[in-house]
Amino acid sequence: MILVVKPQTPEDALHHLIKDIEATGLHTHLSRGEEVTIIGLIGDKTKIDLTAIESNPIVDKMIPVTESYKLANKKFHPQPTEFAVKDTKIGPDNITIMSGPCAVESEEQLLTIARAVKKEGATILRGGAYKPRTSPYSFQGLEEDGLRYMQTASKETGLATICEVTSAHAVASAFKYVDMLQVGARNMQNFELLKEVGKTGMPVLLKRGLCATIDEWLNAAEYIMSSGSSKVALCERGIRTYETSTRNTLDLSAVCVLKERTHLPVIVDPSHATGVRSFVEPLAKAAIACGADGLMIEVHNDPAHALSDGPQSLDFDLFASVMEGLKPYISLAGRTL
Amino acid sequence: MILVVKPQTPEDALHHLIKDIEATGLHTHLSRGEEVTIIGLIGDKTKIDLTAIESNPIVDKMIPVTESYKLANKKFHPQPTEFAVKDTKIGPDNITIMSGPCAVESEEQLLTIARAVKKEGATILRGGAYKPRTSPYSFQGLEEDGLRYMQTASKETGLATICEVTSAHAVASAFKYVDMLQVGARNMQNFELLKEVGKTGMPVLLKRGLCATIDEWLNAAEYIMSSGSSKVALCERGIRTYETSTRNTLDLSAVCVLKERTHLPVIVDPSHATGVRSFVEPLAKAAIACGADGLMIEVHNDPAHALSDGPQSLDFDLFASVMEGLKPYISLAGRTL
Amino acid sequence: MILVVKPQTPEDALHHLIKDIEATGLHTHLSRGEEVTIIGLIGDKTKIDLTAIESNPIVDKMIPVTESYKLANKKFHPQPTEFAVKDTKIGPDNITIMSGPCAVESEEQLLTIARAVKKEGATILRGGAYKPRTSPYSFQGLEEDGLRYMQTASKETGLATICEVTSAHAVASAFKYVDMLQVGARNMQNFELLKEVGKTGMPVLLKRGLCATIDEWLNAAEYIMSSGSSKVALCERGIRTYETSTRNTLDLSAVCVLKERTHLPVIVDPSHATGVRSFVEPLAKAAIACGADGLMIEVHNDPAHALSDGPQSLDFDLFASVMEGLKPYISLAGRTL
Amino acid sequence: MILVVKPQTPEDALHHLIKDIEATGLHTHLSRGEEVTIIGLIGDKTKIDLTAIESNPIVDKMIPVTESYKLANKKFHPQPTEFAVKDTKIGPDNITIMSGPCAVESEEQLLTIARAVKKEGATILRGGAYKPRTSPYSFQGLEEDGLRYMQTASKETGLATICEVTSAHAVASAFKYVDMLQVGARNMQNFELLKEVGKTGMPVLLKRGLCATIDEWLNAAEYIMSSGSSKVALCERGIRTYETSTRNTLDLSAVCVLKERTHLPVIVDPSHATGVRSFVEPLAKAAIACGADGLMIEVHNDPAHALSDGPQSLDFDLFASVMEGLKPYISLAGRTL
Repeated sequence: MILVVKPQTPEDALHHLIKDIEATGLHTHLSRGEEVTIIGLIGDKTKIDLTAIESNPIVDKMIPVTESYKLANKKFHPQPTEFAVKDTKIGPDNITIMSGPCAVESEEQLLTIARAVKKEGATILRGGAYKPRTSPYSFQGLEEDGLRYMQTASKETGLATICEVTSAHAVASAFKYVDMLQVGARNMQNFELLKEVGKTGMPVLLKRGLCATIDEWLNAAEYIMSSGSSKVALCERGIRTYETSTRNTLDLSAVCVLKERTHLPVIVDPSHATGVRSFVEPLAKAAIACGADGLMIEVHNDPAHALSDGPQSLDFDLFASVMEGLKPYISLAGRTL
Repeated sequence: MILVVKPQTPEDALHHLIKDIEATGLHTHLSRGEEVTIIGLIGDKTKIDLTAIESNPIVDKMIPVTESYKLANKKFHPQPTEFAVKDTKIGPDNITIMSGPCAVESEEQLLTIARAVKKEGATILRGGAYKPRTSPYSFQGLEEDGLRYMQTASKETGLATICEVTSAHAVASAFKYVDMLQVGARNMQNFELLKEVGKTGMPVLLKRGLCATIDEWLNAAEYIMSSGSSKVALCERGIRTYETSTRNTLDLSAVCVLKERTHLPVIVDPSHATGVRSFVEPLAKAAIACGADGLMIEVHNDPAHALSDGPQSLDFDLFASVMEGLKPYISLAGRTL
Repeated sequence: MILVVKPQTPEDALHHLIKDIEATGLHTHLSRGEEVTIIGLIGDKTKIDLTAIESNPIVDKMIPVTESYKLANKKFHPQPTEFAVKDTKIGPDNITIMSGPCAVESEEQLLTIARAVKKEGATILRGGAYKPRTSPYSFQGLEEDGLRYMQTASKETGLATICEVTSAHAVASAFKYVDMLQVGARNMQNFELLKEVGKTGMPVLLKRGLCATIDEWLNAAEYIMSSGSSKVALCERGIRTYETSTRNTLDLSAVCVLKERTHLPVIVDPSHATGVRSFVEPLAKAAIACGADGLMIEVHNDPAHALSDGPQSLDFDLFASVMEGLKPYISLAGRTL
Repeated sequence: MILVVKPQTPEDALHHLIKDIEATGLHTHLSRGEEVTIIGLIGDKTKIDLTAIESNPIVDKMIPVTESYKLANKKFHPQPTEFAVKDTKIGPDNITIMSGPCAVESEEQLLTIARAVKKEGATILRGGAYKPRTSPYSFQGLEEDGLRYMQTASKETGLATICEVTSAHAVASAFKYVDMLQVGARNMQNFELLKEVGKTGMPVLLKRGLCATIDEWLNAAEYIMSSGSSKVALCERGIRTYETSTRNTLDLSAVCVLKERTHLPVIVDPSHATGVRSFVEPLAKAAIACGADGLMIEVHNDPAHALSDGPQSLDFDLFASVMEGLKPYISLAGRTL
């Protein structure tokens, strides 16, 4: 951490600040330039609250030079993380395909979709039982019934299952029925939920918040990891920008940044990122080409009558054709389904 | 709702779509232009899920022309809402000042601050007992102890109290100790929390999400209102943009937009919006000048040693001087403290 | 400037870098922390190109701690700048009102509007003769004829005049007819135009780019100032964000930031920022309340038939009422029209 | 175009508006819903200025349903455009590689780089002679000397050449020496420059503005095309968002959107988008995978001593290795270098 001191700061105020800092156990390093004076803070900053120092009236600005996340940090865990979800793996050797409907609508619908996506190479069945919807009057999901159908589909097909959780109550239910928990974009900084999810020790997919920085995202992963689960995958699903041609702006450079900063696997969701069915295939290819470890793709038996997010869902034929198109990219990346 | 139909759509596909729509109980109105054909949807759209229609392959885009929120909508409740919080009021006749520390640190600290802010005209004491922090290693709040200190401060000074809640558990605790609940920016679309908060029937301050649209914000208010509390105030606290000179970008035009769309009162928080102490007074004046119904201002007995958000907190002298500076603006707005 | 060195950098690479830096005439200050090593760069960095240093493979990041603009910098010119435009002044004692139509449409129209805005207290007549329009098929302005009408209106009413320029050719023309040049948002980083404008030595209004940082904006002012004109006023006109309720997001905290960083006067344009007529008055009040030195407000004799930007233009009655509403805020700010 | 009429509009105001619209030659289509009334506008809207209609007090909002660009619009020119630049082609059969230094520094430097990039498969040499720099005190380019070196390099290697132009004067010079003109991000809405560039009839690379929507970008292309050049390629180079981990956010979904809306070729510039050398290869692969027609990649003989943008430049070895890595992706896309 570097402190930039305000110009014309009297010497005694400067020394008083340095004494305050050193009282916390940190060491300091003073550097006087022609225009500015800076103080370097040396030592373990995770133990103390730096805002007290930042608010000292002689401090012009405080510039962090190290990251606050440790467990998720590649510096301390250089090898890429791999973990199992039921019988499938997420990690550097695979492209893991998570597919299924946005919302679970009925047992029959889910089974039909599960069989179809399995046939094409998906190994994890996704399906929403708790749907966070902008309006309270929109369809909110089948809740525990939806989870039960997920379990049935898993038993019948052998697919692993993932389901979004939106409350401590949903975590407790999902724990009984599915293999992996998903934290959605709107809850990425719902820290109480992150802790609940972490406590289960289960594999977790953490979606990026609508306008979360990569640093905030990795700190959110740190909440889960420091609560008990080390099996966290990060899911880029588009960020909110001024551009309205696509629902969100898929940030594929984030995949590159994550690969430098963390050992956790990275999944890309082109369906939610764009909201446009025909963009799923080209952006799925792009995601694999730039280093993603997996894809989340929405598939529906009858998109024209889906209860949620129809416009971005693929039907079975289109999904089969997309998966066919992805195969040479998966090979090029030196991975397998 | 308006549907724009894709060019060169065959007549029978068009008629099939219209039949599908009318089967839901809506009426349609077809309009053929030289370049595009559009279908107007007439009737109560809150009962049906329109994404099924939007995903029909012949639909180019769907353009909403009415809002999905009803209880929060000024069209149906043209009079501005006023409600009491303990002995104070939030509404069109007042400028309600909510002040106090970012985080409750001790009973003594809180009492000192409570007395100081009351003296200058604040009527609601704010203080965080549950702190949502980016890093799991930062100070997270005193939890129920903090709430108890809030209650003590209220008894001693007569101030009403407001506290942020971050989980169903925190709601249950806060219900016993404080007069108003706050939903923070990171939880604005934590819909499960919104429902819990609404069920209490208590007054609620709903902060705008870091990158929430005004429409999403009003829908979040609708979640609270449709769950049982009609006493909702909205708090503009800055949005996330590309500009880094201030922590967030305070969106004062949002105050004007809200005044046209909703009857709910609007509070502005210049402390969190900018993160800079010296900007609080000019932007507080600006907020009153453009129609806000109140202000949330962070005050701390010793900002240089605050456990959270010191750089933006005012000390007692500065708070007194800010309040003095605001008074003529409050009078000009035809309001009282 | 601070360089953060990559972890595990060998000693000789570090010393090689330091030697490279010192060869440019800068001094260095080495600081070794537990996790990172940083190098402070001391001396006049405007003379050398630092990207060569930044691209050294052992440099992790380069963090600027001083500003690259000098003439516009308050640190070196602490007194607020005041300058005359014809018979009016822009500076700390006034609220300067610049009003008129978005586009000059005819001599008669302009004269009618000029008389009306003068009557209510405007001292500078605005009017576009060169209109930068998104589509090449939209009305592009009357060009030199429009400038001539501005001159006529100035002679008849005594108002000073301001006109946007979009090319070196337009600068040469405008130089002959008007009193102040405007650089529009889309040309804020058209550096060739900035230099041309600066060479005239005329007063200049520099609008903020659609997504310009404050730092970039002040560097754009530096281009004008270092080319010959010291009479630059900055105009906040809204920035582009994800929010679509208003055309742009008016960034009033920028006024506060500018007041700390520069001595140049700051004008606010609520008409272009919001695109909504009814938001002009509340946001104009807010702008004055937070320290702006003037306002740009669009006024049209017949907004319903304006050739450009009708929805945000005030008619004469509404302008008179807005100006009446602003007067007590101008007094409170200790200023005069 | 659709007009949404305000609620409770009196019948005669509605009929008056319809009469006004029809007086412009457009036809109207009235549709009365339960909550809103809308008017469809039918006919050629490019001939009239609709803001006059939008500003009518009974109009709540105006919603465009067709695009204002025609020459760039795929609807009217469904076949992808291909054009020659000297001996190379940009279009659906190729991946065109444009490489070279950010800034031309000397004849010798440029020749060395030209030979190196040609060897690896680049067919267009890029090099800046006019550099738009944020600060007036940064290196601004060699101007006409730089152009001359480009011509020499072209003669010696056979490469086509592209150079950014920043003023009418630079266009006139570049016309004599290079094969393709580039309009940079900061000048994307410098409409006078777009017209000058279009008048040359030369091939043009139009970079996306820092926060330009795709619609604005295509309208900027329309300026060039309607001024005389039909050989326009669009270059995605990252947009400005809140995320600071990369210099800009590369928007690869824009490639997909453009492929649906326009017949013009699309180039991607991963060097400027990210500002990070190690992200160039993965994002270049991703760009090809999602449909781009070419890449712009910065290459420098000695990045550690480059006068501009060193951190993102590749040296010759790295460029060779990137090109090797791209080849299987070019084959997969069914294209050739």
